[in-house]
Amino acid sequence: MKVYEVQQAFGLSNLRLAERPSPQPGPWDVRVRIHANSLNYRDLLMVLGHYNPRQPLPLIPLSDGAGEVLEVGEKVTRFKPGDRVAAIFAQDWLDGDVTPDIAKTTLGGPLDGMLAEEVCLPENGWVMIPDHLDYIQAATLPCAALTAWSSLVVHGNVKAGDTVLVLGTGGVSIFAVQFAKLLGAKVIATSSSDEKLTRVKALGADETINYKTQSAWGKEVLRLTDGLGVDHVVEVGGSGTLAQSLKAVRPSGTVSLIGVLGGSEKALNILPILMKNIRVQGILVGHRAGFESMNRAIAHHGLVPVVDQSFSFGEAPKAFDVLQQAGHFGKICLRSE
Amino acid sequence: MKVYEVQQAFGLSNLRLAERPSPQPGPWDVRVRIHANSLNYRDLLMVLGHYNPRQPLPLIPLSDGAGEVLEVGEKVTRFKPGDRVAAIFAQDWLDGDVTPDIAKTTLGGPLDGMLAEEVCLPENGWVMIPDHLDYIQAATLPCAALTAWSSLVVHGNVKAGDTVLVLGTGGVSIFAVQFAKLLGAKVIATSSSDEKLTRVKALGADETINYKTQSAWGKEVLRLTDGLGVDHVVEVGGSGTLAQSLKAVRPSGTVSLIGVLGGSEKALNILPILMKNIRVQGILVGHRAGFESMNRAIAHHGLVPVVDQSFSFGEAPKAFDVLQQAGHFGKICLRSE
Amino acid sequence: MKVYEVQQAFGLSNLRLAERPSPQPGPWDVRVRIHANSLNYRDLLMVLGHYNPRQPLPLIPLSDGAGEVLEVGEKVTRFKPGDRVAAIFAQDWLDGDVTPDIAKTTLGGPLDGMLAEEVCLPENGWVMIPDHLDYIQAATLPCAALTAWSSLVVHGNVKAGDTVLVLGTGGVSIFAVQFAKLLGAKVIATSSSDEKLTRVKALGADETINYKTQSAWGKEVLRLTDGLGVDHVVEVGGSGTLAQSLKAVRPSGTVSLIGVLGGSEKALNILPILMKNIRVQGILVGHRAGFESMNRAIAHHGLVPVVDQSFSFGEAPKAFDVLQQAGHFGKICLRSE
Amino acid sequence: MKVYEVQQAFGLSNLRLAERPSPQPGPWDVRVRIHANSLNYRDLLMVLGHYNPRQPLPLIPLSDGAGEVLEVGEKVTRFKPGDRVAAIFAQDWLDGDVTPDIAKTTLGGPLDGMLAEEVCLPENGWVMIPDHLDYIQAATLPCAALTAWSSLVVHGNVKAGDTVLVLGTGGVSIFAVQFAKLLGAKVIATSSSDEKLTRVKALGADETINYKTQSAWGKEVLRLTDGLGVDHVVEVGGSGTLAQSLKAVRPSGTVSLIGVLGGSEKALNILPILMKNIRVQGILVGHRAGFESMNRAIAHHGLVPVVDQSFSFGEAPKAFDVLQQAGHFGKICLRSE
Repeated sequence: MKVYEVQQAFGLSNLRLAERPSPQPGPWDVRVRIHANSLNYRDLLMVLGHYNPRQPLPLIPLSDGAGEVLEVGEKVTRFKPGDRVAAIFAQDWLDGDVTPDIAKTTLGGPLDGMLAEEVCLPENGWVMIPDHLDYIQAATLPCAALTAWSSLVVHGNVKAGDTVLVLGTGGVSIFAVQFAKLLGAKVIATSSSDEKLTRVKALGADETINYKTQSAWGKEVLRLTDGLGVDHVVEVGGSGTLAQSLKAVRPSGTVSLIGVLGGSEKALNILPILMKNIRVQGILVGHRAGFESMNRAIAHHGLVPVVDQSFSFGEAPKAFDVLQQAGHFGKICLRSE
Repeated sequence: MKVYEVQQAFGLSNLRLAERPSPQPGPWDVRVRIHANSLNYRDLLMVLGHYNPRQPLPLIPLSDGAGEVLEVGEKVTRFKPGDRVAAIFAQDWLDGDVTPDIAKTTLGGPLDGMLAEEVCLPENGWVMIPDHLDYIQAATLPCAALTAWSSLVVHGNVKAGDTVLVLGTGGVSIFAVQFAKLLGAKVIATSSSDEKLTRVKALGADETINYKTQSAWGKEVLRLTDGLGVDHVVEVGGSGTLAQSLKAVRPSGTVSLIGVLGGSEKALNILPILMKNIRVQGILVGHRAGFESMNRAIAHHGLVPVVDQSFSFGEAPKAFDVLQQAGHFGKICLRSE
Repeated sequence: MKVYEVQQAFGLSNLRLAERPSPQPGPWDVRVRIHANSLNYRDLLMVLGHYNPRQPLPLIPLSDGAGEVLEVGEKVTRFKPGDRVAAIFAQDWLDGDVTPDIAKTTLGGPLDGMLAEEVCLPENGWVMIPDHLDYIQAATLPCAALTAWSSLVVHGNVKAGDTVLVLGTGGVSIFAVQFAKLLGAKVIATSSSDEKLTRVKALGADETINYKTQSAWGKEVLRLTDGLGVDHVVEVGGSGTLAQSLKAVRPSGTVSLIGVLGGSEKALNILPILMKNIRVQGILVGHRAGFESMNRAIAHHGLVPVVDQSFSFGEAPKAFDVLQQAGHFGKICLRSE
Repeated sequence: MKVYEVQQAFGLSNLRLAERPSPQPGPWDVRVRIHANSLNYRDLLMVLGHYNPRQPLPLIPLSDGAGEVLEVGEKVTRFKPGDRVAAIFAQDWLDGDVTPDIAKTTLGGPLDGMLAEEVCLPENGWVMIPDHLDYIQAATLPCAALTAWSSLVVHGNVKAGDTVLVLGTGGVSIFAVQFAKLLGAKVIATSSSDEKLTRVKALGADETINYKTQSAWGKEVLRLTDGLGVDHVVEVGGSGTLAQSLKAVRPSGTVSLIGVLGGSEKALNILPILMKNIRVQGILVGHRAGFESMNRAIAHHGLVPVVDQSFSFGEAPKAFDVLQQAGHFGKICLRSE
């Protein structure tokens, strides 16, 4: 079978097609024909060697993939051939807390990932995907969607009538807008592009802020919430935006720290965290129980993930280029030929 | 000012119009012109002397009332004349747990209630009502709506994609259907009347069961949930229905025990509670923090309470009669002339 | 290897020694020499056919066992030969909620159990046991101890200064007393025997009540708590004691429903659950994450389980007899010769 | 009555004795003879004008005070003359979340504080103090003790067997050590002084680290926890220590952000928060429900607060000097003559 490997050295130019033998399932394993993948910023960092320079090579990259079960081991009970499935990001994370051991079971580094024609993993590492989604749409769920869900639901307990502030329009952020609406919350979304704000409004955002024209957007959020602040911030900008997020959140509110696109190490006044009794919750994707409850919500509401562009399997390097340019709205995906 | 009192002895026939002096607010008090009330089953039991036979008389009954602020004490900061408000059921219950002391501060017994032209209570005992509701609609919120909200949100953490089973079509149940939909849940509703099931479906219920024609409705719920069971049951029937509810709920699910219309003392097999790791959560209306978060949800979604019938202030005894006949769908209310 | 089987028909007289081949571990499996077992009331019901009359036979009974790792499959990373381990009751319950699937993975029925010289299970189904415990003591942990821990910690969030009421002096109850003390709580314990009350006091109980001489012990608990009631009840008596437990618990308090020794189906007034905003939480043993956190607490405090009597492997039927007589204080165990 | 006021301008030299009329209680008020106070770092910042430069003057400083009830308003039910009480920091914070309104009701700025012979506040703003404490000891509870309690219990759910890392030996930190032990946790404490580490060990700390001699103490904490990290960090150093705290905490663990002694604005790598799924919880003292549950724990265990030094009422400026030198172990207090 064909796979992509980062070979010999890090860098997009070392991402090469290779041939590996088709995997043989053990008694608990499930072998899957991967029909689609999606790309996350972590995948790019991994290929570039910025995520973990000590990652051994070759590595099959990508955490996200969805496909059809080809074969199951003799002890497998949760799946059968023909089932439509996606893999979970941290293979041993079924519920509850992350542990150091669990943290070592993530796909696309340190473990080989999903950019392959076939993938074989224990049955505990797969979930069924919603019926109404095609494989490309379903491939967006394991990381981006689950990160948004973990933030709002597993850690955030967002409820009807709450106000959620979502920064930006990347994959996680768009899911956060969609999920916050399912939960009955009011959504304030930000972007540097009025055109993207129009699109995010069409997805359900109640209010929008162009953070380029309103650099003190924390204050604008307070204005939009009668001076109270939002209940929850989906923070993807890191140190670059956290100061404004701490302004925008209400006392005793929550900031979900999801990404650090604006940098991870800057001088930052942390006093408001304490003075306003704020919770800053780091979000590392999520567990299988969260994935399954998310899928129930997606299925019940017929929610459709927003795919910015999809490329063929052979165009994987090109897809990484597009991701790197960071102009996308929603997810960038790959489909098998 | 005019009030209704249960005088001398319990019984609907002792519910009489009386005159009391208009109350004078102390420094922390808020005096309100009551424009509407709603009736709860507890009010009926109270008037009949079945709720607490030792309740001293005369008593002004009713827990629910909404109106306009006429006057505030000199230290009051949360309200001003003209504000539209409703009183909270347990006057000292602002957040967190009930205590024995808090349990003694409920309106309509032991404290005088809302069936009066004017009511004066400390500012902590009032909340603002949503702008889009008239007084009659707002009068349904303090007990019935908040009980449903406490069940699903405060104790239940119901989220998008969960399945909620709601028994019956009384005041609390109808709110439970409406709130469960706001939260993104799937709703299964029961009634003994196909006509009411049609109406509850129009309010958003996804599935309905006529429990008269399907007496083993617990099994039917399992069928509707692929054998899994529902995440949450809003149980208003007490011992009469609990056995079926315990069948219908999933392992580790929650049954909110809200009413005991089907009796409170019958032989009941409690083994499933333990075998299925079920939580049975008794719900005593709720606290002010819950009321305020509920009002935000109602306002954001423009939710309109379902009022079955409303009577004039002078027809209060008649309204009690209608409540007693138990044929209503949603709430029975009173309006001031 | 030798095992005990319930053969052909239910009943203690059908519990027979048998020979089975030593199990061969698959790639994820761990083979363990069992050095000790403990008995739970569920095991007795299972052998008698009262738990699940449709359980296929032969069945190796018992949920609890502890021993030494003999051999591990090639993919196993969590254990190595020589490790001291115990099996988890529901093999697939690692954290979070029970599901119908998980409920089918319990040892000692439906799955073969621990009353065997050797047991082979996937690595996810084992935990390390605390160093300071011998195998007999460690064999008490998987069901009785974890049930008490799940009740007080996982579901109960019992904290220093809380008051916990523990009914009786069986295995779960004694652990509940010990754990409640570790958590800094005040403990009120009940028994029908003054001699047992003396022993439970020596284990740390702050107050004791002989429920035989004080049949209205709910009232006595209120007296001991200045009329407030306890924060948490560890309820093992079922319908037979629940009415008093509902009296004894404070408003917004929790009753952990753990056993039904006093019967599971009696007329019971459930009104107080609702009137006092009480939570009744059914407890089905617990998950692996709870087991591991419990073991940390046991290890840190050097807690020693209370073993009433231990019998040799060959005396297993006799041990069941003693369990059936229900006069024990703490746990009844088996040790390998 | 005598009070201290910050008059005309900020600065310790402007902290002056003054005379004010004895307060007259309204119907809900409680008038108290203050017998002792304790000082918090916030009080010093307030007097110096660093906390809120726009605070109107004159201001009676101090949040902490304990005393005896002299007189109660006609509607007061929770207290009577002779009761021993302490005021709560945020007068309107009874339970649940902080709100912007609640945040304005803190004693010692913006509201007048406790450095007065008499203080009159609504009954909701007082709690009973444990019987076994004298007024000086009890005066340490409202801010320092409650902050530690809120961190470990209200937000942290610390349980037996957990490991808690406590930084430093100031007032909050010492309470955190004492409470963590009550809860059954293992404690690792840090200080720059071996002498203080000896004292904190005598209070129950299981392990100690001198952060002066071990500047990479995050690594040392990992060593002491078998590479896992602690469950909870009580972080008082702010940006100056947070990087090490994020190293020291386990994945999915909690860092309670309580103080910023090491600075509030420095470059800080926040990536570990997200990568390790960490929760950073800002702690703003706490609510009355927490105060009352803490008092039950203190009373049940006979816990005695650690008072470093106590000064007479007339020596208040001197007490501030000692606080400013930051060499204390536990709390600095004032007693009335």
